[in-house]
Amino acid sequence: MPLPVPVLPEGVDPAWLPPGAFRAVGGRRTLIRGSGPLVETVHGEVAQACRRFGGRVVRDAVPDGAYDLVLGLGADGPDLLGEEGFTCAREGGTTTVTASGGRGLLYGLFHVVRLGEAAFTGERPRETHRPALALRMLDHWDNVAVHPVMGQVERGYAGGSLFWRDGRARGELDRVRAYGRLLAACGINAVSVNNVNVHAAEARLLTDRIGEVADIAGALRPYGIRTHLSVSFAAPVTLGGLPTADPLDGAVRAWWAGATRRVYEAIPDFGGYVVKADSEGQPGPFAYGRSHAEGANLLAAALEPFGGTVHWRAFVYDHRQDWRDRTTDRARAAYDHFVPLDGEFAANAVLQVKHGPMDFQVREPVSPLIGAMPRTRLAVELQATQEYTGQQRHVCWLGPMWSEVLRFPPELGLSVGELARGGLVAVPNAGDDPFWTGHPLAQANLYTFGRLAWRPDAEPRAVLDEWIGLSFPDAPPQVAEGLHAVLDGSWRTYEKYTAPLGVGFMVQPGHHYGPSVDGYEYSPWGTYHFADRDGLGVDRSVKSGTGFAGQYGKPWAELYESPDTCPDELLLFFHHVPYGHVLKSGKTVIQHIYDAHFEGVEEVEEARSVWASLAGLVDPARHARVAERYEEQLRGAREWRDQVNSYFFRKSGVPDGRGRRIY
Amino acid sequence: MPLPVPVLPEGVDPAWLPPGAFRAVGGRRTLIRGSGPLVETVHGEVAQACRRFGGRVVRDAVPDGAYDLVLGLGADGPDLLGEEGFTCAREGGTTTVTASGGRGLLYGLFHVVRLGEAAFTGERPRETHRPALALRMLDHWDNVAVHPVMGQVERGYAGGSLFWRDGRARGELDRVRAYGRLLAACGINAVSVNNVNVHAAEARLLTDRIGEVADIAGALRPYGIRTHLSVSFAAPVTLGGLPTADPLDGAVRAWWAGATRRVYEAIPDFGGYVVKADSEGQPGPFAYGRSHAEGANLLAAALEPFGGTVHWRAFVYDHRQDWRDRTTDRARAAYDHFVPLDGEFAANAVLQVKHGPMDFQVREPVSPLIGAMPRTRLAVELQATQEYTGQQRHVCWLGPMWSEVLRFPPELGLSVGELARGGLVAVPNAGDDPFWTGHPLAQANLYTFGRLAWRPDAEPRAVLDEWIGLSFPDAPPQVAEGLHAVLDGSWRTYEKYTAPLGVGFMVQPGHHYGPSVDGYEYSPWGTYHFADRDGLGVDRSVKSGTGFAGQYGKPWAELYESPDTCPDELLLFFHHVPYGHVLKSGKTVIQHIYDAHFEGVEEVEEARSVWASLAGLVDPARHARVAERYEEQLRGAREWRDQVNSYFFRKSGVPDGRGRRIY
Repeated sequence: MPLPVPVLPEGVDPAWLPPGAFRAVGGRRTLIRGSGPLVETVHGEVAQACRRFGGRVVRDAVPDGAYDLVLGLGADGPDLLGEEGFTCAREGGTTTVTASGGRGLLYGLFHVVRLGEAAFTGERPRETHRPALALRMLDHWDNVAVHPVMGQVERGYAGGSLFWRDGRARGELDRVRAYGRLLAACGINAVSVNNVNVHAAEARLLTDRIGEVADIAGALRPYGIRTHLSVSFAAPVTLGGLPTADPLDGAVRAWWAGATRRVYEAIPDFGGYVVKADSEGQPGPFAYGRSHAEGANLLAAALEPFGGTVHWRAFVYDHRQDWRDRTTDRARAAYDHFVPLDGEFAANAVLQVKHGPMDFQVREPVSPLIGAMPRTRLAVELQATQEYTGQQRHVCWLGPMWSEVLRFPPELGLSVGELARGGLVAVPNAGDDPFWTGHPLAQANLYTFGRLAWRPDAEPRAVLDEWIGLSFPDAPPQVAEGLHAVLDGSWRTYEKYTAPLGVGFMVQPGHHYGPSVDGYEYSPWGTYHFADRDGLGVDRSVKSGTGFAGQYGKPWAELYESPDTCPDELLLFFHHVPYGHVLKSGKTVIQHIYDAHFEGVEEVEEARSVWASLAGLVDPARHARVAERYEEQLRGAREWRDQVNSYFFRKSGVPDGRGRRIY
Repeated sequence: MPLPVPVLPEGVDPAWLPPGAFRAVGGRRTLIRGSGPLVETVHGEVAQACRRFGGRVVRDAVPDGAYDLVLGLGADGPDLLGEEGFTCAREGGTTTVTASGGRGLLYGLFHVVRLGEAAFTGERPRETHRPALALRMLDHWDNVAVHPVMGQVERGYAGGSLFWRDGRARGELDRVRAYGRLLAACGINAVSVNNVNVHAAEARLLTDRIGEVADIAGALRPYGIRTHLSVSFAAPVTLGGLPTADPLDGAVRAWWAGATRRVYEAIPDFGGYVVKADSEGQPGPFAYGRSHAEGANLLAAALEPFGGTVHWRAFVYDHRQDWRDRTTDRARAAYDHFVPLDGEFAANAVLQVKHGPMDFQVREPVSPLIGAMPRTRLAVELQATQEYTGQQRHVCWLGPMWSEVLRFPPELGLSVGELARGGLVAVPNAGDDPFWTGHPLAQANLYTFGRLAWRPDAEPRAVLDEWIGLSFPDAPPQVAEGLHAVLDGSWRTYEKYTAPLGVGFMVQPGHHYGPSVDGYEYSPWGTYHFADRDGLGVDRSVKSGTGFAGQYGKPWAELYESPDTCPDELLLFFHHVPYGHVLKSGKTVIQHIYDAHFEGVEEVEEARSVWASLAGLVDPARHARVAERYEEQLRGAREWRDQVNSYFFRKSGVPDGRGRRIY
């Protein structure tokens, strides 16, 4: 029985799967061969497209030239393709997609959808497609109960959670399934359904509330997505009533084994646990004098019999640092904590590392931890939800940033994309907002993440072309041009008008939206710029600073060590320099700050007018939402410009070389 | 029937009415004469004291020398004493208190309690006591429903509300009555029971929920306290369903008349309304193009038939100011808005003015509005809740500050205490905390407020002596010495380690606790210090600044106009000066900042050790709570010192003249 395509509630944007995206497939004669649940999903997709565009679909006949498209399980070397790979070829008027598993067939279908008419034109030599990374995951920071400070979704800028509302599962499983469908279309295959900060109500998802998770898993499964759960390391105490959560305690191990067995009874293809331990107040193994490897291996052992994985976050640092103490460096923390443990983690324990050493700033160097633990499976964590990059009120397409990170070779000659053997993970930007992501153009971030997880060396502009083609299938060419104009450079634009030269933060404390240059300067969070009347930046050199630069291998350690060789865009991350320091660009630091901030605002003004010129060419609701957000982005960019420039003018006393107005 | 004294719940501190405070009265033979509800209150008080200390009390006999104390209504010229005055004399072994009203008798009793043994020693010539101000009021900023940001009590640092919890009246009327008793003992006679920011649930107290207010009024009435209510100017729309709240609209006037009549049906001695209009988002007459006099007079007209008063707050300013615009000055706002309306307010409309032109900072000049509206009844508003003065985690006895304000002659030769013909109002610092005020020593602020409202020219140290005598009746002399040592200078100590020289703010945005020098510098709130690498302060002179100094009469306008004559402690409120500007103290501004901050911390260290030396001499629970808060105060004071000093060192580049550690 073909699985019907989920119906979106009235008014919900189709994102990158509007009906028009299926025009080419839907007008053809398609044969589907094979069996299994995901084949039924594929059948349902094709059948709906055919109903709309006049094609037809047949099941399990012999391919005989009567079909434009054959989607089939089988024949072509399962070992090579794996569960998720597929081949695609066109010969004699028939396009053939072959996969050895249901997921592969589904991904093959979406490949054909992306190709559109091109999939049915001329001949195509056989291409093999396989994901570079086996795990392409979203970690939802969704709370079950509304958190008094963080709300329903921590760092969520797209309305409420798709899964939870006011303390319970929402139960609107059609919308969950529609979400899974969007994710499958960009290649995502795993979702963790609750916040890594596990509060009291959320902790119980592991035990007596596992049924609610099973319902969500059931809705995501037809699109090839496995469900994971964030758990609290203290669960044996808080839920199990044990006196300890010590990972070496026999009763604790037995408790986790039993709890995990019951999880798998409810969700046989359960993916595993995500754990934030000893971090920002969450409990962890340090309380028992145990290492993080011992902590992770406790959960790995419980999951191992069922094929599950524990994702153990490396985001461990002192969030009660004394700002007076310039020797402690939060950037060093993950490396210092985890590198000594290399080789001690179980095979099904994945260490999940944020891409930068700090916290998802608009510009950071790549974390030196990636590449420094060759005997550990690492996953790399990105942030699609725009906590520090405009909170989905500002356009900031993160594709170029992520691509830079994924192509960066930290130390062993391998790129981050190759080193992320444990997978690529993103904190997603989606919620129950009608446009899924608050800002309609932020959909591009979620799509791009999935595609980069599939293939980390993909060209981000090509991915953006895919997204445009799918999302705006019937638009004239100037729409694609306009979208490139407003998206391609948006990350650098955002960087220009916010914290300069890699120094980071300068945001309003707590909610992190909008500028506050000194907002975190005297805080315990380890995020400082040390600006005084002479200069600014953090000295992280080995010679005179915190030594963080020495955590890198060659050539980076040497390159970052000196302000003469450090790339401009990271200068203030690694060095404290005078305002008069001359950048490689030939500008002084202070003049760069002024220029970048004026330029950033000008670029937003320009983007806003490009967008305005697309009125009438894109869906009016989408257009209006984006236009409205541009007003806020422009207001915000001006506020950033004026506050940052005024702050540094008041501190440095150096006037703008071009005499522009600074307050 | 004598009214039983309310019983405090187990564990609640007796504050300034512990049993021992009644020792002298309770050991005597007392005659009580007269009738009426408050006479029964007096009888209940004396009867309880006698039960405890072996005296006895007789009602309505003839005074014949058999009594040590006669408390009686009557004879002594009612016109002179008024409802609240009393006389006290001692002759031939009998102390006689005479009043013409029940409240006067109650205040007379508490006068005798304060005197203690001295009331029964030797001869005392007849003294007449009357309150200088007829209205001595507390405006509780208590929400009925928990506000998502502000909680149960806005700017409350003493637990929950005494009146409300989670959306309803708490109903624990014995505690409310006990609160009224404490207030009566320091002379307070009016309480507004809900926040001036009137949210949806609270708005309905005026109409269908007036019964809850009536219950509270019933509990406060036996201690001579009238109940008032904060109302929303938009009530005719939000509650009455009218299309407008225009004060000149007939239906609006009729609606208020009807609503007010129903209030008086429920609470015959209802005091009146408190209104925050056109302020920080609250609705007001500006929406209809009407003046604030027209707004206030609308409510005054509704209250007039019943003898009620409207308290109309003058706290009107632009809270969406552009920080770039240095011509707009929040300090000017109340004067600019209200002085043109002098003479237009109804006789039962009271304009309620904050004592300073900004917002309850540790140091402000007196508001120039006070004294500039001779044809308007003004009430002066103080803030006992320590929003900007340590939030009841820091000791900051405000008596000296309030006394300075009340003795200040703004312009007409009269002091603020004399000009406050409409009364003295405080935002109280009490809640359901076991110590009433969070910090046990903050009880002194509430007591001092009441006594200064009774007599604005009272010597604050003498008031503190009263409070100590009542609160610690059995303590050895070193307790009084110790309390003076830690309280007398605590306001100046707090001033020393926080924002310097009258510049104000520099607090964490939102909650206002702890330092953030730039926290409000680029905000829309109108609270700036304009520090740059050369100097700091706000130029409010007429010559070169906002002109605020010109709002004062002689001699102040002239005195404040020039940095040469402006008092040091207000220098940065009125002037932007270089760091090297030499104060009258002979120090430069920057060195003053350093010195004051180091001294402030040293003074806290000293106070903490004085308090430690009192262990064993005061109630252990009180001692422990204060000791614990001193740890937090010291931590906070050091944080203030280091952040402020570091900020100005980084900006000015001037090293400390004494070479101390600055970060």
